[in-house]
Amino acid sequence: MINKLTDKIKKTNAPIVVGLDPMMKFVPGQVQKRAFEEYGETLEGAAEAIWQYNKEIVDNIYDIVPAVKPQIAMYEQFGIPGLMVFKKTVDYCKEKDLVVIGDVKRGDIGSTSEAYAAGHLGKVKVGNKTFSGFDEDFVTVNPYLGSDGVNPFIKVCKEEKKGIFVLVKTSNPSSGEFQDRPIADADGRPLYEVVGEKVAKWGEEHMGDSYSYVGAVVGATYPEMGKILRRIMPKNYILVPGYGAQGGSGKDLAHFFNEDGLGAIINSSRGIIAAWQQEKYASFGEEHFGEASRAAVEDMRKDIAQALDCR
Amino acid sequence: MINKLTDKIKKTNAPIVVGLDPMMKFVPGQVQKRAFEEYGETLEGAAEAIWQYNKEIVDNIYDIVPAVKPQIAMYEQFGIPGLMVFKKTVDYCKEKDLVVIGDVKRGDIGSTSEAYAAGHLGKVKVGNKTFSGFDEDFVTVNPYLGSDGVNPFIKVCKEEKKGIFVLVKTSNPSSGEFQDRPIADADGRPLYEVVGEKVAKWGEEHMGDSYSYVGAVVGATYPEMGKILRRIMPKNYILVPGYGAQGGSGKDLAHFFNEDGLGAIINSSRGIIAAWQQEKYASFGEEHFGEASRAAVEDMRKDIAQALDCR
Repeated sequence: MINKLTDKIKKTNAPIVVGLDPMMKFVPGQVQKRAFEEYGETLEGAAEAIWQYNKEIVDNIYDIVPAVKPQIAMYEQFGIPGLMVFKKTVDYCKEKDLVVIGDVKRGDIGSTSEAYAAGHLGKVKVGNKTFSGFDEDFVTVNPYLGSDGVNPFIKVCKEEKKGIFVLVKTSNPSSGEFQDRPIADADGRPLYEVVGEKVAKWGEEHMGDSYSYVGAVVGATYPEMGKILRRIMPKNYILVPGYGAQGGSGKDLAHFFNEDGLGAIINSSRGIIAAWQQEKYASFGEEHFGEASRAAVEDMRKDIAQALDCR
Repeated sequence: MINKLTDKIKKTNAPIVVGLDPMMKFVPGQVQKRAFEEYGETLEGAAEAIWQYNKEIVDNIYDIVPAVKPQIAMYEQFGIPGLMVFKKTVDYCKEKDLVVIGDVKRGDIGSTSEAYAAGHLGKVKVGNKTFSGFDEDFVTVNPYLGSDGVNPFIKVCKEEKKGIFVLVKTSNPSSGEFQDRPIADADGRPLYEVVGEKVAKWGEEHMGDSYSYVGAVVGATYPEMGKILRRIMPKNYILVPGYGAQGGSGKDLAHFFNEDGLGAIINSSRGIIAAWQQEKYASFGEEHFGEASRAAVEDMRKDIAQALDCR
């Protein structure tokens, strides 16, 4: 799957993943209205609105980006109907041949991580049959519990040729509270470097053609740290959130890539899916929010290409 | 809700939470058989088996324990049907007046943690109406992203009088890989202490009568660390997993409690719910697995009481 991701990035020339994080305030009024007319102002109505919104965006971008990253929290907040649309979105994106990164940030002790890994990347046994609960291509994983929280995911990834992105340095303002603390028995280097070294090591166990199936999450908002982490994890893809809305800009991104122009994939969520709300894309009008998203992807691709050319 | 938990612990004299982590290998054959006869060997069949299994156990223990802790991963692995049974289990346990701790270990950047908090502890807005997606009393939270990953949970807890347990030192063998690392700018004390101090601080913002709505998770498998963390977090309840199957024993537990005999709640999962598979409780027979669970709770209560008496 990491080979597929790399191939698709080369083919589209867009190291971009679109975050499908559908907050209701992004969903155009007419989409909400139609869904509420059919299902009422209910969890089912909200879920239907999100589904129609996602579908329109995916239909407009699937041929120009390699991957999407649905953030499960935005679905989980609507309970079971929300999670049904998470699944529907994952399945639809896979039909469209997009690589699907489930942003689930799971992680637990061994036997519990096994269950998460089976549910999101693998298969679960029921009597003599096997089923997939959800079926993403990659998921994000929280490393706080150490190797026995991560290894069950890697085990399933090997069986299924799938991958993970481990949180190393997150994009949020307070990520430094614990992640930046200097580790005394690692020459005072910050925790995120220690975690990054571990990601490099975990990654060796499950290599694709040129990159590992085990990647890392490093926020665009911390470009200097990205530069160091790039060196620590040369064979690991870096998933970079925080571009656009969270404050990271094109020129911050160059350091996340290797010399081959690969090794990083930049996430934008509201910058793409809520493009229709930006002044820059207002001319598309609310009805054509999907086309606004496509235009925003094209602009993002140019911004990244320019940043890579200038380095 | 922390007051309710404390009251119920006093009333039952059992600082015990039963982990409802239904792995299929724990579910008696006749329960699986009946469910598969009705729904086939499908995800729905597995979910039904788990539901019948949970219900029987809850019916046998609800009057002698204050709380249950369903581990969502064990449901999530069965996809949507599994999560429907997670919800059904949460709702049923609340009907039985049990305090429900959703072991979800969520945590993300601010706006995403808001969505998780709304979905599991709070309410979500749909048009002019509000709904609860899931509706636990407490959830577990992963601290790796720092304050802005945790604060949205605390905000919702204040609105709803609910609570959280933040992972501090987990019970698994490799928890030390990152959690035990010495922090240079904290006099070389381990990361879990630094996180524990933060939990104490977060907890001050949302106090119940004598304990905070913000608690901590500290594994029974690390009693010496528990002793130190008890001092660092005097007003925070400690949720202690790892008793029984994972290796923690009664005598290890005394340090987790305050002088008032409160401040800790000990989790046992397979030790209770799969008691029927233990030689000690074999005389109940497979049909009476719920009664075996009840007997195991009684034994655990005695073990803890003895440990507290001996200190």
